[in-house]
Amino acid sequence: MRAEIISIGTELTTGRNLDTNSQWLSARLAELGIPVAFHTTVGDDLSDNVEVFRTAANRADLVIATGGLGPTLDDLTRDALAAMAAVVLDFHPESFERIRSLFSQRQRPMPERNRVQAMLPRGAEPLANDAGTAPGIWMKIGRAWVAALPGVPTEMRNMFERELTPRLMSVGAGGKVLVERKIHSFGAGESAVEELLGDITRRGNVPEVGITVSEATVTLRVVAQAETKQAANELIAPVEQLIRQRLGNLVFGAGDDDLHDCVARLLDEKRKTLATAESLTAGQVAERLARIPGVSRYLRGGIIAYVNEVKSSLLGVPPELLREHGAVSASVAEAMAVGCRQRLDTDLAVSTTGFAGPADGGEGKPVGLVFVGLAWAGGAKVDRFVWGGSRTEIQARSAKFALNVIRLWLEVQ
Amino acid sequence: MRAEIISIGTELTTGRNLDTNSQWLSARLAELGIPVAFHTTVGDDLSDNVEVFRTAANRADLVIATGGLGPTLDDLTRDALAAMAAVVLDFHPESFERIRSLFSQRQRPMPERNRVQAMLPRGAEPLANDAGTAPGIWMKIGRAWVAALPGVPTEMRNMFERELTPRLMSVGAGGKVLVERKIHSFGAGESAVEELLGDITRRGNVPEVGITVSEATVTLRVVAQAETKQAANELIAPVEQLIRQRLGNLVFGAGDDDLHDCVARLLDEKRKTLATAESLTAGQVAERLARIPGVSRYLRGGIIAYVNEVKSSLLGVPPELLREHGAVSASVAEAMAVGCRQRLDTDLAVSTTGFAGPADGGEGKPVGLVFVGLAWAGGAKVDRFVWGGSRTEIQARSAKFALNVIRLWLEVQ
Repeated sequence: MRAEIISIGTELTTGRNLDTNSQWLSARLAELGIPVAFHTTVGDDLSDNVEVFRTAANRADLVIATGGLGPTLDDLTRDALAAMAAVVLDFHPESFERIRSLFSQRQRPMPERNRVQAMLPRGAEPLANDAGTAPGIWMKIGRAWVAALPGVPTEMRNMFERELTPRLMSVGAGGKVLVERKIHSFGAGESAVEELLGDITRRGNVPEVGITVSEATVTLRVVAQAETKQAANELIAPVEQLIRQRLGNLVFGAGDDDLHDCVARLLDEKRKTLATAESLTAGQVAERLARIPGVSRYLRGGIIAYVNEVKSSLLGVPPELLREHGAVSASVAEAMAVGCRQRLDTDLAVSTTGFAGPADGGEGKPVGLVFVGLAWAGGAKVDRFVWGGSRTEIQARSAKFALNVIRLWLEVQ
Repeated sequence: MRAEIISIGTELTTGRNLDTNSQWLSARLAELGIPVAFHTTVGDDLSDNVEVFRTAANRADLVIATGGLGPTLDDLTRDALAAMAAVVLDFHPESFERIRSLFSQRQRPMPERNRVQAMLPRGAEPLANDAGTAPGIWMKIGRAWVAALPGVPTEMRNMFERELTPRLMSVGAGGKVLVERKIHSFGAGESAVEELLGDITRRGNVPEVGITVSEATVTLRVVAQAETKQAANELIAPVEQLIRQRLGNLVFGAGDDDLHDCVARLLDEKRKTLATAESLTAGQVAERLARIPGVSRYLRGGIIAYVNEVKSSLLGVPPELLREHGAVSASVAEAMAVGCRQRLDTDLAVSTTGFAGPADGGEGKPVGLVFVGLAWAGGAKVDRFVWGGSRTEIQARSAKFALNVIRLWLEVQ
C-alpha cells in the first residue's frame, strides 16, 4: 500500500504560506510503515481539486488531504470529494451538534455558515475534531481509501493520531515499522557534538544517526526499520547508550522533550520552587515553563526587570553596582538572582541580563553577550555566554541557556 | 499560462526534509504574473517521475522541476524527461567542459560519474549553473514548456533568476504584475469578520480578497494584478479603505505588522510607559514587546504572578479578594493591573489571569476563560474572553488579547 498526500489552499500554491503538514504526515506514515509516493498541492479551485483527487486515487491506495474543510466559500474539499465519488452531500446531525456545542462552550453564537461543516459526502464517515469545528472525512472511492483532515496543524495532528491511525490499521495499511528516536543535547555546537560522537554519525550506518539543530538544541536522530516496533527499538538501544556515554550531561532529554519539560520534571522530582528575574529574555524563561500543565506547583512567578530602576526597586540590585559594572555584568546577574529569590521566597531563582541587539555594550561587551545568575539557599553563581543570531534568536537561546543552567544544577542535587 | 512545480527527492516524500523550493518558486512566479496551480512532490523512482511529468504537462503550460540533477544513480530527472519526450540523451560537450573546469578550479579530480550531468534530452537547452556542477534543462514537450533546476536552494535560485527568468519572458510566460496587501485585524473570529465584510470576500471579485487566521489574528489579503505596480496599488486602495471602514477598530495594522509592533509604536507616539502583571501568560505579553529593539524606552518591566501568594505579596492583591472571587475573576484582574502600575511606576499596566487548561475553575469558568485588566492614571477596566485551543494556544491568544486591549486604549488617547 502506498500513499499520496494532498495539501489544499491557494495560500500554498501562491507561495504565501509554507506547507509543513505534508512533511509531518510523511514522517508519521513512515513510522506506520506506509510509504508516501507523492505530495500534491492545489489551490482553492473545484475542478483542479477534483482532477487532483482523481489522479491520486488512480496512483495511490491511500489519499490523505489537508485543508479546505472550513466554513467559507473557499473551502471546497467536501464538494470535490462528492463530485469525484459522484455522490451527494448529506447533512450529518451528530457533527452539527458537535459544532454547535463547541460554539456554546465558547459562549459565542454559531454563524449560520458553519452549518456547511456538517455536510459529508454520502457514504463517508466523519472524523471527530477535538480542537476545532471541522470534522474530517473518511471514505473509500474506487480502490483507494481517502481521508480529509483540517489544514490547521494542531487539529490535523490530533485527528491523525486519534481518529485516522486506528482506521489505517483496521484496513491493513501498516507495513514494516520505522522507529525514530530523538536524543536532545544543549551546551555544545553541532560540530563539537559531531566530533564527540566520532563514527556514530557516519552515513550508511545501521541504524542511521542524523544530526539537526534548532534554537541551539542539537538533536541526534537514530532511525531503525524492523518487523516490529520492539525489534526496531532493540536496534536503537545500544546506539542511544553510546551517544549518551559520549555526550555526558550535554544530553537533557529524548523524544518530544524540550528543555523546559526537563526542568519542570526535575523541579517536581527534587521538590524545589523557582522564580525568574529576567532582563533581556523579558519573561521568556517563565513563559516556557508555564507551557507545562500544573507548573504552579513549583514556578511561583518572576520579575521582569527590563530597565535599571526596576532592577533596583523590585530586585534590590544596588544602584552603585549598576553604575560601576553596568546592567550586563556578572555582579548584576548575581544580585538579580539573589534579590529575586528573597522577594519571591523560593528555593531557586534564575536571572538573565544581556545585549540582544542591535545596541551592544561597547568594548568587550558584544551583541549576544548574556549572563545567567542562579541563587539557592547555599549560594549563587553566574554563567556567561556569547550567542550569535538575530535579536529574537539571541533572546530565545538565552532563555534556553538559563533553563539549562537550572537543569545542570538540579541534576546533581 | 499557468504553472506546476515539481519537487523531486525521496528525502521529501519520506518527510526527512521540508520542501521550501516550491514556496519560493511560487512567490517568484506570482511576481512575474504566472499563476501556479499545482505543486507535486515525487520520490527518486523513474516510473513515478515520468507519471508526474506527464500529468503536469497535461494540466499546466509551464512545468518547473527541482532536484534529481546530481551525478548519482538516484538522480533521474534527465532520464524521466527523455522518457516522457520519447527522445534519447545526448552528450553535451560544452556542459561537460563547464563541469570539468569547475573541478579543476576547486583543485579536485572529476569523478567519472559527474560525466552523466552533461547528458541532456535531445532538443533541450542547458541552463548554466554558477554555483554547482549540474546544468539545468529547458525544453518544450508537447504544448508545455519544461524547466529542470537543481534541488540545492542557492543553485536553484541563482539559476531561476539568471537563466530561467529571461527564457520565461521570451516565450511570453510573463503576465501582469501581482501586488498583495495584507490588512490585519484582532478581536473577532474569521466568520464574524467575513460577515462584516459582506460581499468584499466574494470569489471572483477584482481585486480578490482572501482571509486567513493565525493565532486569532484574522488577516485580509487583497491581491491585484495590473500592468504596473502603481496600477495594482490603485486597484487595492479603495478596497483597503472599504475593509477598514467596515472593520473599524478591529484593524490594527498592515503588511508585516504584528500586534506587538503596533502597541510599541503607539506607546512611543503617545509617550506612555507600560508594565505587565501576568498570571496565565507568565511573561509572554512582555516577551512579545521585548522582541522590538529600543523597547526599554516604554516597557519598564513586569511581575509574573503565577501563584496567589505572589499576586498578594508583589502586586498587593488582597487575599480576601482572591478567596472570595477566585484568582480568575474580574476583580483580581483589576487589582493586579492597579497594583502593578503603582509598583512599577508606569502610565499603564496590563494584567492577565485565566485558565489555560487542562484544569478549569468549575461552574461558569471554563478552560480558555481569561480576564485582562488595564490600569491608567484615571482608572481601570477589565475585559473578558473565552478562547478555544490547546494550553499554549490559549496562552498565546490571551497574550495577544492583552496587547489588543492596550492598543484599543491607546488609539483613542
